[in-house]
Amino acid sequence: MPRTGRRAGDADTRATIIEAARAEFAANGYNAATIRAIARRAAVDPALVYHYFTDKPALFVATQELPQDPRRVREAVEASGSPGVRLVEGFLAQWESGPGEPGRSFITLAQAVSSAPEVARSIREFLGDRIWAGREESGVDGLWRWNAISAQLVGLAWSRYIIRLEPLASASRHEVAARFGPAIERLMRGDSAMPQANDP
Amino acid sequence: MPRTGRRAGDADTRATIIEAARAEFAANGYNAATIRAIARRAAVDPALVYHYFTDKPALFVATQELPQDPRRVREAVEASGSPGVRLVEGFLAQWESGPGEPGRSFITLAQAVSSAPEVARSIREFLGDRIWAGREESGVDGLWRWNAISAQLVGLAWSRYIIRLEPLASASRHEVAARFGPAIERLMRGDSAMPQANDP
Repeated sequence: MPRTGRRAGDADTRATIIEAARAEFAANGYNAATIRAIARRAAVDPALVYHYFTDKPALFVATQELPQDPRRVREAVEASGSPGVRLVEGFLAQWESGPGEPGRSFITLAQAVSSAPEVARSIREFLGDRIWAGREESGVDGLWRWNAISAQLVGLAWSRYIIRLEPLASASRHEVAARFGPAIERLMRGDSAMPQANDP
Repeated sequence: MPRTGRRAGDADTRATIIEAARAEFAANGYNAATIRAIARRAAVDPALVYHYFTDKPALFVATQELPQDPRRVREAVEASGSPGVRLVEGFLAQWESGPGEPGRSFITLAQAVSSAPEVARSIREFLGDRIWAGREESGVDGLWRWNAISAQLVGLAWSRYIIRLEPLASASRHEVAARFGPAIERLMRGDSAMPQANDP
C-alpha cells in the first residue's frame, strides 16, 4: 500500500500534483490519463488528488493555469514582423516548446476540450477574461473580431498539429507566422470588414 | 446469447451497422461509444461489426462517408451571397442538420480526430482528395490558400460548437456566413496575399 497523505503537509503538494498531471496528460493524452496514474507519478494517494481537485477536468484546467514557459514569451517578443505575425509566432511557440513532439500539448487540450464541456467553458472564460478583456475596442463589431481571431488561431493549430495539412504541418513557425499574420493583423486593427447579414 | 451473424446474408448489413454507429456516436460521443453498443443497436453480433470494420476508428470513418444530408446541399445552393458566403453557410448547415443539438456531429468528429490519429489521417485525405483535388489553381501558393481556408472553417466550427464563443455561438447561420464569408472568398479568389517568410 502506498503511504497515504505522505505530502499532505507540504505546501508544494498542489504544485507537485499539477506537474504530475501535466506529465501524465502529455504522455498518455487526456482520455487515457487517470487520477490513479497521476497520483502515482506525484507519489501521493489518489484521495489527496481529489482533495485538491474535484475531478479530472478540474485538474486538467489547473495544468493550463501554470505560468507559461518563459521561452515562449521571449520568442514572441523577439519575433520580427508586425503585431499579427508576432501573435501567430507566440501562439505556435506556446504549443511547440513543451515536452513531446511539437504540438503534443495542443492535441491533449483538444481531446480535453472536445470531451469535457467544463474544460471548454474554462477555456472560453480564460480567453474572455484574460486575453481579450480590457482591450480598447468594444461593441458588437469588436466582439466579432475577437471571435474571428480566436477562430483563426485555433483552426491554424488544429490544421497544423492534428489534421496535419501540408504544407502547413511541415513549414517552419516563422513561415506560418509570416503567411497567416497579416490577415490576423487586419482583424486586430479593425480594418477588416466583417459585414452583418442582410435580412434573408 | 444473441443470435450471431443473424443478418450476415443481408446486403444491407454494412449500411445497418453504419447507421447504428452513427446513432451511437451521436448519442454518446466518440470516446464513450463501444463496438458492443453499436452491435446491439444494429441487432448483430459484435464479431460481425469487426468483420466489416477493423476497429472503432475505421467504423467512425465509415460513418463520415455516407451520402450527405441532401437538405444541406440544397441549403448551400439556395443561400444568397457570394461563393465564400455560400461555402460557410453550407459548411455550418452540414453540422447543424443532424440529430441532437446543432453542432453535435462536429463535437463527435472533434473527439474522434483528436483521439485517433487514423481518423485525422482519413480526414486529411478526404479533404485533399475529394474537396480540393481538381481545383484549377495549384502550386505552393494554392496549397497554402486551401490550408488557410480549411483552417478558418475548422476554427469557426470549434469556436461556435465547442468553445461556444459569443456572439458566434448564438448568431444565426446566416449572420455567421455573412461575417466570415468575405475573408474566405478573398482566399478562394487568390487575391488575399499570403506572403512568404523573409529569411530571419
